[in-house]
Amino acid sequence: MITEYSAEELKSLLDKLMAEYEKCKALNLKLDMSRGKPSPIQLNINNDLLGEIDSYITENGADTRNYGLLDGIPEMKRLFSELLDIEQDKIIIGGNSSLNLMYDNFMRLYVFGTQGNTPWGRLDNYKFLCPCPGYDRHFAVSEEFGAEMINVPMTENGPDMDVVEKLVAEDPTIKGIWCVPLHSNPLGVCYSDETVERLASMKTAAPDFRIFWDNAYGVHHIYEDVELADIFKAAEKYGNEDRIYYFFSTSKITFPGAGVSMVASSKANIAEIKKHMTIQTIGHDKINQIRHVQYFKTAENLKAHMKKHAASLRPKFDIVLNTLDKELKDTGLATWNPVKGGYFVAVDTYPGCAKATVAMAKEAGVVMTGAGATYPYKKDPEDKNIRIAPSYPSEEELQQAMNLFCLCVKITGIKKLLEEK
Amino acid sequence: MITEYSAEELKSLLDKLMAEYEKCKALNLKLDMSRGKPSPIQLNINNDLLGEIDSYITENGADTRNYGLLDGIPEMKRLFSELLDIEQDKIIIGGNSSLNLMYDNFMRLYVFGTQGNTPWGRLDNYKFLCPCPGYDRHFAVSEEFGAEMINVPMTENGPDMDVVEKLVAEDPTIKGIWCVPLHSNPLGVCYSDETVERLASMKTAAPDFRIFWDNAYGVHHIYEDVELADIFKAAEKYGNEDRIYYFFSTSKITFPGAGVSMVASSKANIAEIKKHMTIQTIGHDKINQIRHVQYFKTAENLKAHMKKHAASLRPKFDIVLNTLDKELKDTGLATWNPVKGGYFVAVDTYPGCAKATVAMAKEAGVVMTGAGATYPYKKDPEDKNIRIAPSYPSEEELQQAMNLFCLCVKITGIKKLLEEK
Repeated sequence: MITEYSAEELKSLLDKLMAEYEKCKALNLKLDMSRGKPSPIQLNINNDLLGEIDSYITENGADTRNYGLLDGIPEMKRLFSELLDIEQDKIIIGGNSSLNLMYDNFMRLYVFGTQGNTPWGRLDNYKFLCPCPGYDRHFAVSEEFGAEMINVPMTENGPDMDVVEKLVAEDPTIKGIWCVPLHSNPLGVCYSDETVERLASMKTAAPDFRIFWDNAYGVHHIYEDVELADIFKAAEKYGNEDRIYYFFSTSKITFPGAGVSMVASSKANIAEIKKHMTIQTIGHDKINQIRHVQYFKTAENLKAHMKKHAASLRPKFDIVLNTLDKELKDTGLATWNPVKGGYFVAVDTYPGCAKATVAMAKEAGVVMTGAGATYPYKKDPEDKNIRIAPSYPSEEELQQAMNLFCLCVKITGIKKLLEEK
Repeated sequence: MITEYSAEELKSLLDKLMAEYEKCKALNLKLDMSRGKPSPIQLNINNDLLGEIDSYITENGADTRNYGLLDGIPEMKRLFSELLDIEQDKIIIGGNSSLNLMYDNFMRLYVFGTQGNTPWGRLDNYKFLCPCPGYDRHFAVSEEFGAEMINVPMTENGPDMDVVEKLVAEDPTIKGIWCVPLHSNPLGVCYSDETVERLASMKTAAPDFRIFWDNAYGVHHIYEDVELADIFKAAEKYGNEDRIYYFFSTSKITFPGAGVSMVASSKANIAEIKKHMTIQTIGHDKINQIRHVQYFKTAENLKAHMKKHAASLRPKFDIVLNTLDKELKDTGLATWNPVKGGYFVAVDTYPGCAKATVAMAKEAGVVMTGAGATYPYKKDPEDKNIRIAPSYPSEEELQQAMNLFCLCVKITGIKKLLEEK
């Protein structure tokens, strides 16, 4: 444990590591581990989607080239329905961005309110629960609409439900929570059945408390297939079916730049969304929907397809996890999460070292996600969480980047230990 | 002039026309002249867009399959830039629905305000000018966000600018105006250079007065190419460059179900939009953008392509206009607008007869756009305006539908005349 070293020992190790760091800098690296985006090799898996379309007529005889079918073509709804086990009439098909569906959904709650409740934007103040570390773009949406964001700690089973239940039971101005229930960004946490049940059943002081269920990595298993409990079924059991907005997209199944997204909710909520949607848009790209359906045909094929992505991602996650193990295990300077799928590994540095680590890595040509980005207002209270996104770089690049990253974690940790002596 | 007939003459003619109408009803027609949607034949013109894509890499080396390029690929911006003579850096590319861009734009003004002004949603009340007859979906957007809509009469040169100038100069709660500057829906009016200049230059009591410039039919000429004055240049001359939001899409150039849309504005407004857009979405479908660019290559080709649509639409507009001429000219029971392009012909019936006419047509199997739809709150103050959309039915169907329509106009007009005797 480096944390148990004497000042002498720390100084001596620091000198050695700094020399290594200077050598690394001389390599003039230009590497990027900041973004959860698929690699060109993953994208190539889908190139048949760029080919000719078979037919532009839907199974109910509609022409996907023309106006109509505001909420999506039936076969696209069915594909998502079978894949995620959600009734078809609870589904609305979106464009290529599920983030856009979340933003629009948040906006409607803010401007119009839901099921007769006061619009959130008409309240003096309101709050939103943000399990963290989490996804920066979620937090940005709630910040955009003026919600006060409340940090909720994460456990290995999801948000700390004791904290969540207490907060929502007492405070009617708490209006919702962000959830990434499988392979969460960035922790890779998969919500346990108990967590899902408690989220669906808990008593909330706000009648319009809403769960933004962003199942972004719902079929994105890498090391292990994980089953997610059915939140709709659980919510219905407790009469809370209006509580759930379920989001999904093919961004990391087919193409981030040209996928198909989905929002699902109770029938009452879907009717409400459609009422506004019919004013907002003529409906989303239906040719791209039929293109996706013709490409996958069945949910089974889509799941099989995800094995190809997993095979492409697994060696990269191996590099990240093995390098962390080799360089940082038992140093006392870092911990990280176990990973079963998704796009990220989250590392906790020695407290107070995340910003410095990211800055050092950047100086040597390795771009990481900004420290703090995984917390509301970009404020990591302990300045320790760093998100690693292994998907985009090549394996060779990734190995170089990880070597440097671990070096930076050690150097900044040792510097902090010396400060504390 | 039927309007000058005696009661006797009217009754006799009515008997004759009612007999004709009963015969028509017996035909069990099922025809639709309600929606401005392209016919399958027009859509077939674009079927090459359903084929394989040439390359997914943009001219600046970006991969359209992946994340990135929030505001669109450069070559798509250039295509619109050349087509509409708008600087490229004033352009943001949207998804397949320009209506969606208008809605989102309105929402931002309502929720966040623009350039430091109070958000419209925070005002006690605010108003929006609606030149009418106009487009029902425009009015629906302003109604959705609680604007009080004010009818503005249309002239053959655009909105009555004497009325507009007076209103906006006096009332700081008037925040904007809807404009369809070419081949307007439903009148087919093309704004004169003077109208454009006056809109761009007029003094407005509201510093955040905004023109929603929906140039939906900007290259959709049928009988005659019409030039539109450059509203950006005019606005800049008077220091009003932030006043203009310019919308456009390929919905009626390629596919309504899978086109590409655009919003253009001043650099300050574009920066403001992007600030929110980066929170709202990962950006719109870029493969569809590059697909469109590869299909058209140049603005000149796109304009040439529009001649094919015109050739397909012209015989249908001929049928509408010739039948109106033959059946209703000099009856005193209807007037209609001259048409140079676009998707509609607007007919004014004898006052108080629009609803009855549409109902009669429907009873005989011909669906028209609902009477009143062309006015805010669906309230046509004189109950006389009816929108005809000739594009979708076949020529044969259209002729049948127009015969019946003219019959209904005459019958309801005569009934009204008899009431007034």
